[in-house]
Amino acid sequence: MVTAKARAVGGPDQSFHATEITRRELDVHDVLIEIKYAGICHSDIHTAHGEWGPVHYPLVPGHEIAGIVTDIGSEVSKYQVGDRVGVGCMVDSCGTCANCQKGEEQYCLNGNVPTYAGVDKYGEPTQGGYSSHIVVTEEFVVRIPDNIELDAAAPLLCAGITTYSPLHHWGAAPGKQVAVVGMGGLGHMAVQIAHAMGAEVTVLSQTLSKKEDGLQLGADHYYATNDEDTFKTLAGQFDLIINTVSASINLDAYFSLLTLDGTLVNVGAPGEPLSLNVMSLIGHRRSFAGSMIGGIRETQEMLDFCAEHNIAPKIEVISADRIDEAYERVLASDVKYRFVIDTSTL
Amino acid sequence: MVTAKARAVGGPDQSFHATEITRRELDVHDVLIEIKYAGICHSDIHTAHGEWGPVHYPLVPGHEIAGIVTDIGSEVSKYQVGDRVGVGCMVDSCGTCANCQKGEEQYCLNGNVPTYAGVDKYGEPTQGGYSSHIVVTEEFVVRIPDNIELDAAAPLLCAGITTYSPLHHWGAAPGKQVAVVGMGGLGHMAVQIAHAMGAEVTVLSQTLSKKEDGLQLGADHYYATNDEDTFKTLAGQFDLIINTVSASINLDAYFSLLTLDGTLVNVGAPGEPLSLNVMSLIGHRRSFAGSMIGGIRETQEMLDFCAEHNIAPKIEVISADRIDEAYERVLASDVKYRFVIDTSTL
Repeated sequence: MVTAKARAVGGPDQSFHATEITRRELDVHDVLIEIKYAGICHSDIHTAHGEWGPVHYPLVPGHEIAGIVTDIGSEVSKYQVGDRVGVGCMVDSCGTCANCQKGEEQYCLNGNVPTYAGVDKYGEPTQGGYSSHIVVTEEFVVRIPDNIELDAAAPLLCAGITTYSPLHHWGAAPGKQVAVVGMGGLGHMAVQIAHAMGAEVTVLSQTLSKKEDGLQLGADHYYATNDEDTFKTLAGQFDLIINTVSASINLDAYFSLLTLDGTLVNVGAPGEPLSLNVMSLIGHRRSFAGSMIGGIRETQEMLDFCAEHNIAPKIEVISADRIDEAYERVLASDVKYRFVIDTSTL
Repeated sequence: MVTAKARAVGGPDQSFHATEITRRELDVHDVLIEIKYAGICHSDIHTAHGEWGPVHYPLVPGHEIAGIVTDIGSEVSKYQVGDRVGVGCMVDSCGTCANCQKGEEQYCLNGNVPTYAGVDKYGEPTQGGYSSHIVVTEEFVVRIPDNIELDAAAPLLCAGITTYSPLHHWGAAPGKQVAVVGMGGLGHMAVQIAHAMGAEVTVLSQTLSKKEDGLQLGADHYYATNDEDTFKTLAGQFDLIINTVSASINLDAYFSLLTLDGTLVNVGAPGEPLSLNVMSLIGHRRSFAGSMIGGIRETQEMLDFCAEHNIAPKIEVISADRIDEAYERVLASDVKYRFVIDTSTL
């Protein structure tokens, strides 16, 4: 067993505290990773606050993990000590169901094992990346290309794959009009990836406050959704809209922006049910879809794509004692565009 | 001008009455059709009752039209006098927009001209198929194959194409699991078409009262949705669900029946907004879509497909003086499965 430093939260209303946790002995296919950086994802906050159902406290969040392999199990074949690697939102799955067999482990029919707030195959609660070390089976570890810095790599493991996967699945490409709703941690990745895929990219953000960043990251157009004219100007324009906003939006208004056979994909989920008028879909054979992170093979593909196209998140690296402050700032949308914890400060 | 016999309704709460209407002089590309049969579609009732917005009264409904060409304009090239032909839900469109250019006139960006309760390019209100004659530009006339009886052909022009188009678009085929929600005018066509396309077909109806018909029409399985176990038994089974029910349904329950990348397509539209939980889509990258009739080219393809596979609606032919009674019976779901008016009784 390895004793790891960590930052944990003891209950839904508590602050983070320094602690130690143990990581399991290496099984034959396990990899021990010394975590260098861990991104802060909005879902960390929901989970830490118990907003997505009861969780086992103390809880160590974090599923945007970048680090270095420091030990390997006896039958590990994919990684060696010293490799630069990442871990995302899941650390295991059944491996045998139809979806796992397709490489879509995120949709494992028996339930994948989330990186934190889950229960692993040994019956132990999983603890995440706000920690100095983690043990993960090699099949759920991805390789970080050399030209991506480890701090910038961390957010790719969730924000990157969550946007890459639907853009890839629904065919963002030259000749396609793609809109990205929301210019936050996910949105600023979607803009870069869609642009690199060759699509014409439009950002739909509440205001124009981040317009300069959006255009610099590759957006061709940038519109404010608090301006009524936006929905008239852009009616019927988009083949694909990636909605990164978890808050409730007026779905019918966004559907009206889709062209024939266009799709609006939600990658975030509001807590409450949404309302829609079916005629908004029927009128132009439009679709409303959802997408959740991506499979392991696709996550590796995303990292390689980002390396090839020099895509990286804009990050603010913080020390571990600033996690509570960072949570408050994320909730206030006061981050450009992702906080990353330097785990050497744990 | 041609004077045509017709049955019209004079206001939202009125009964049908016998009347005469005029049809325009043949333009160079127009076809004069002597209508033999006209189906009664649920949307006729909504429109006649003014439930879908204000309409011009007196109104002659009917967009499931089968008849014989009796005269043609000077430049008509597709049809000759004596041809067996049909007209569906639209009689014209702009012909120049991107969607018309793709042969998807039903999604005309400038608005297609509905067969009744619309306004044609001459500025005149359109009147539908509960009538002895109609004049339609040849581009919106389809040919009825010889082995389809005219009375059975009529409902294909709406119920047939409305279900054929999404089944074709979303790939019903051997190896695919297709569910049809609702066993009415649309549903009993969807079952036959999906079966002929080679899919494994399941009917999801409120009760098992029409099970025998469903199996006889080609369904492989038939489940009652008023049985809670149905949703457990069939969880994650279907690649495609065609929802023919216009009433509100519990969308999340039906989404749970879809497999990875499955799609639920609504071909009917409830009057009120629907509610859904986005997590129902995100969990398995599911889609919720809408589809509206089909283009003219696809309507011809559907007729030829039905002819090839001996597909026909089950109909109850009525005389024109029974339209009001038929409306009441449609509203009470007391029809197996489509009323067709014999227009010789007008």
